[in-house]
Amino acid sequence: MSENSVSFEARLRNNAAEVEACLASILGDTVQPDEIARPEPLLVAMRHGLLNGGKRLRPFLVMESAALLGGDPGAALRIGAALECVHSYSLVHDDLPAMDDDDLRRGQPTVHIAHGEANAILAGDSLLTLAFDIIAAPETRLKDRQKTELILALARASGIGGMAGGQALDLAAEGCVLDEAGITTLQAMKTGALIRFACEAGAIIAGSADAERQLMRQYGEKIGLAFQLADDLLDLTADTQTMGKATGKDAARGKGTLVALHGKDWTATQLEQLVRGAEDLLSRFGDRAAILIEAARFIANRRN
Amino acid sequence: MSENSVSFEARLRNNAAEVEACLASILGDTVQPDEIARPEPLLVAMRHGLLNGGKRLRPFLVMESAALLGGDPGAALRIGAALECVHSYSLVHDDLPAMDDDDLRRGQPTVHIAHGEANAILAGDSLLTLAFDIIAAPETRLKDRQKTELILALARASGIGGMAGGQALDLAAEGCVLDEAGITTLQAMKTGALIRFACEAGAIIAGSADAERQLMRQYGEKIGLAFQLADDLLDLTADTQTMGKATGKDAARGKGTLVALHGKDWTATQLEQLVRGAEDLLSRFGDRAAILIEAARFIANRRN
Repeated sequence: MSENSVSFEARLRNNAAEVEACLASILGDTVQPDEIARPEPLLVAMRHGLLNGGKRLRPFLVMESAALLGGDPGAALRIGAALECVHSYSLVHDDLPAMDDDDLRRGQPTVHIAHGEANAILAGDSLLTLAFDIIAAPETRLKDRQKTELILALARASGIGGMAGGQALDLAAEGCVLDEAGITTLQAMKTGALIRFACEAGAIIAGSADAERQLMRQYGEKIGLAFQLADDLLDLTADTQTMGKATGKDAARGKGTLVALHGKDWTATQLEQLVRGAEDLLSRFGDRAAILIEAARFIANRRN
Repeated sequence: MSENSVSFEARLRNNAAEVEACLASILGDTVQPDEIARPEPLLVAMRHGLLNGGKRLRPFLVMESAALLGGDPGAALRIGAALECVHSYSLVHDDLPAMDDDDLRRGQPTVHIAHGEANAILAGDSLLTLAFDIIAAPETRLKDRQKTELILALARASGIGGMAGGQALDLAAEGCVLDEAGITTLQAMKTGALIRFACEAGAIIAGSADAERQLMRQYGEKIGLAFQLADDLLDLTADTQTMGKATGKDAARGKGTLVALHGKDWTATQLEQLVRGAEDLLSRFGDRAAILIEAARFIANRRN
């Protein structure tokens, strides 16, 4: 492991600790202005879904993108926290019996296992609502114009035209084999949209010109693709180790992935091209972009 | 029925038709900027939950409150539409098997019966997300400052400190008997918060001074209470007609209502006082407030 990647992972960890503290403070017991009460069973379920020691990769991308472009770190932390609320709500709802029906996440019981299905549904709903609360709240020190841009971009990345739509496509694809275009759309929606938002958010927070905002979007799209390819590759590798056959799990699930379609060599080449593409996009920033280039490499090479 | 109330109901119907058209246009097939696609199964489930010919009482309150204070009608229509998305999402999720487990709503199959549980969960999630999209979108012609105020107020009215928290309290109260304070908090959260928001939103849209905003909040709180009392009374009356015993259903459900606690006479007196209180609050506006005073009376006397 290179020295660079050690310092990258340390930075990711420090950043995650900051995000965790921010989220814990937002989900404290204190009833906020215009709230009537914070019912304990719901609060506990929300904390279970949100404060789980995740890598906080999406907030990291918000914060480092904002830092690169000169955005306020405190505002970036809060926007990252809002984004993590959306990501966490999606995991709580995806784990439900009617969806992916998962009992465990990160080795812990999922929210509906620990707190019941009704509380899990409401906890997801409330985390999604909280995301927009956090952005709009006076504690987020941005111009109102920036807030409405962030809220619109986050809503579009999360709703029917983004993440939730991608999950609907995924459910509809059970038992079918998607073609390349179908897989690409599904993945761009289900995982790509939030990662793209994370990077674009940095530019909005920094008040960057349209050209920089476009550039950060493109960077976000590239690492979103890399994230998904690495994920599919991991899925395959884990499968190879545990079941002794390479494509069995994907075939059994009846869902296509680009890795299953094109093979591992193609995937390795694609990942390398995506990292290079990310590097090229950020080259105009020189050394200041080193951490985001490391992030692209980390995402492409991740092992868990 | 007085002439006033006939014209009131006509106005409510016209208004509902306008809201329905606005919502249908927002939930059209056209993919919006920053959206990747609008998957058909999810879009159909969202439409099922949203375009159901409801009374659209909450949008009506937004629009008439804004009209009273000089707010732009087009902007008020869109904020009303956003609020209706939140109300509709809550019905879709409340009907789920893990929540109230209802198969029918307005005589039609509920969303999960018609489109499956997974699509119902995602449709609710996407309607909630869409609410914030609508407020932040450029088509809503308000200042960014007004948009962030509306988004924050709506999030607080809908999330853990408002409607979703109220639903969590309601679920937790299964099998218990709540005391008066417990019932009041539950109802203020579960149904009161969105109605209060509707009225306050009118003042935000009109750019009113704090005094007017406070006044509209108080009006909203009064009619929110009236709405719930009338609801509980209806529950009791329907029960009397169908089961032949007055308090059986509430007792069987193990949940208290203020009507069950204090009786019908007390409730009738309360409702009259709430309508008078709403009248007093709006008296400074003279005849221009007639429609909102009619609204209070309609809510207190409603039969369905």
